[in-house]
Amino acid sequence: MDVKQKAVEMHEKWQGKIEVISRAKIETKEDLSLAYTPGVAEPCKLIEKDPDLSYKYTRRGNLVAVITDGTAVLGLGDIGPLAAMPVMEGKCALFKEFADVDAIPLCVNSKDVDEIVRTIELIGLSFGGINLEDIAAPRCFEIDRKLKERLNIPVFHDDQHGTAIVVAAAMINAVKLAGKKLEDITVVVNGAGAAGIAITKFLLKLGIGDAIMCDIGGILYEGADFMNDAQAEMAKITNKNNKKGTLKDAMVGADVFVGVSRPGLVTPEMVGSMAEKPIIFAMANPVPEIMPDEAKQGGAYIVGTGRSDFPNQINNVLAFPGIFKGALQARATDITDEMQLKAAYAIASMVTDEELNPEYILPDALNKQVALRVAEAVASCVK
Amino acid sequence: MDVKQKAVEMHEKWQGKIEVISRAKIETKEDLSLAYTPGVAEPCKLIEKDPDLSYKYTRRGNLVAVITDGTAVLGLGDIGPLAAMPVMEGKCALFKEFADVDAIPLCVNSKDVDEIVRTIELIGLSFGGINLEDIAAPRCFEIDRKLKERLNIPVFHDDQHGTAIVVAAAMINAVKLAGKKLEDITVVVNGAGAAGIAITKFLLKLGIGDAIMCDIGGILYEGADFMNDAQAEMAKITNKNNKKGTLKDAMVGADVFVGVSRPGLVTPEMVGSMAEKPIIFAMANPVPEIMPDEAKQGGAYIVGTGRSDFPNQINNVLAFPGIFKGALQARATDITDEMQLKAAYAIASMVTDEELNPEYILPDALNKQVALRVAEAVASCVK
Repeated sequence: MDVKQKAVEMHEKWQGKIEVISRAKIETKEDLSLAYTPGVAEPCKLIEKDPDLSYKYTRRGNLVAVITDGTAVLGLGDIGPLAAMPVMEGKCALFKEFADVDAIPLCVNSKDVDEIVRTIELIGLSFGGINLEDIAAPRCFEIDRKLKERLNIPVFHDDQHGTAIVVAAAMINAVKLAGKKLEDITVVVNGAGAAGIAITKFLLKLGIGDAIMCDIGGILYEGADFMNDAQAEMAKITNKNNKKGTLKDAMVGADVFVGVSRPGLVTPEMVGSMAEKPIIFAMANPVPEIMPDEAKQGGAYIVGTGRSDFPNQINNVLAFPGIFKGALQARATDITDEMQLKAAYAIASMVTDEELNPEYILPDALNKQVALRVAEAVASCVK
Repeated sequence: MDVKQKAVEMHEKWQGKIEVISRAKIETKEDLSLAYTPGVAEPCKLIEKDPDLSYKYTRRGNLVAVITDGTAVLGLGDIGPLAAMPVMEGKCALFKEFADVDAIPLCVNSKDVDEIVRTIELIGLSFGGINLEDIAAPRCFEIDRKLKERLNIPVFHDDQHGTAIVVAAAMINAVKLAGKKLEDITVVVNGAGAAGIAITKFLLKLGIGDAIMCDIGGILYEGADFMNDAQAEMAKITNKNNKKGTLKDAMVGADVFVGVSRPGLVTPEMVGSMAEKPIIFAMANPVPEIMPDEAKQGGAYIVGTGRSDFPNQINNVLAFPGIFKGALQARATDITDEMQLKAAYAIASMVTDEELNPEYILPDALNKQVALRVAEAVASCVK
């Protein structure tokens, strides 16, 4: 049976991938009077006096909302909030299974930035953190920014920042293995949407030498006429040599290719045109920009994809469960750049120098120790 | 140790009364590919084509949101949404423990009717039902009404309708025991807020002879100048004889007193002025309008309160878990009057004629069979 058919059968069997249970047993009159009236009035009154106590007397301190508008779901695009729910539930299941973080899926039935922001703002007190998910660019940038301003709990758009952290972790180890230095490398990022822009910004913070972004219109450069506002901003801080042309032109002499775009855009010849020991992170899902065997034919030294059936899977599950676990543990009010950089190094550190090889630059996606290490790293940033 | 202190200790220990678990085990690559990418894409695509499948492939069909604005919490009043959360979590725990319904607590940080309605409307697709909780009158009427118009899932304000159902169940059995008929009795309802108005409306649907509502200004009658809009509406359909005066005047000759007001408003003398076999439901919490022993001194035949330490506890937990379980099972789009009436009779039927006596007119609040019986009754209304 193929994965599609089996997934449908399992979804029927699960009847939802999450479940809400009671941590309070309610069998006697006393149980009822402690968990509900009249006893429950006491923690209410204490929280009214000191709002911080909500972290002590309710689940808030371990509770994340996974929120989407359903506009950029997996590779499926704008399938709407209701159809996005299986993904949100899956994410919630991963939060619990990988980091013992409780997570609730919420779909917001609107495409209006201010309405989405206001909705999340108004229910924000119910949670310890907000994980935004599968919201299309450029709307996601504004939603993310406005929510960070208005809420004093961590807000994290996983498609942007989670992906960026895991790519950075892969980059740290791949570059080390290739005997290069981060500050010397040029990275081509193909796909200038939410993920591509977030990855590029984050790699610059990590200290890479230069990035060249490409989109359907070709290489982004200052003054190009095909760019949206977010892309124009990126053109200012990337492409130091002001290259113009296509993806093929961009890749000549580059050290790393990062693809968050579409299947089959990269050829072995393009890999062959890169600097020595080419590093390819081809993350289009489910079919990468170039298949690993083709990339190797073209001379690739290291190949990573989003897929679990090839080596070096670049999977967000390495980041988001630990990120939120650490932020919640430390009662962080934001996920800072420092936390994200430390998280990337923590993930990279899960592969020892002895283990590190071109087929093994990232810990296994199923290694649940990673979330603990990431959580420690993130929590250590809160004084 | 008193209940207040112990409740605080237990809340510290629980660290939240709810928890979100994963129904999908995620230990192997295959698990990950079925619960998350790439497998999860299939149920998403199927739901996109047929939105009804969200009930099959996600938890929606068993999931209720318990939502408050924190303006009328227990007897505490307007303590705000954050401080209300221990009550909402308690309610969610009761949903699970009594009816295996999953429930998520949400607090909305607004007092604006339209903003609250819009917020709930926008996230409504995430749930199979909405349980409104502890929202002050008259705002709650409008929120309830507007949400019912805009959402095609059940919306139920428990403080209004849940209370009304359990009072009606108690009334059915008490009146039977007193050898009277519903259509002959006059019921005084003291407290013309959300609960009092909902109870009165529902008792009229149940078929009582007349109701007389009282509030701080005295008996509600058509043309009285102290009434708000909702109360003026009630004056039109109650108080057939156009009585005027105080609560004391209202009670003369009445068959039943229902109190959703404040401690100590009723004296034994007032009970003595009622028709024979007076029935007293004194539900002010934690101290009733009249204590059971005083009511008995005044000649009360049956006394019910909101408290678990006296006989005949009128507790919403007899209604809401089964109401939602039945509505979800039958995929009802609304909680109709018929469902609520059948629920009241189902609760009353849990006390057999042999068992029925003045100290036992309602099943025990902890009897988890009640929810099953109520669910059956509610589901039977959906063709």
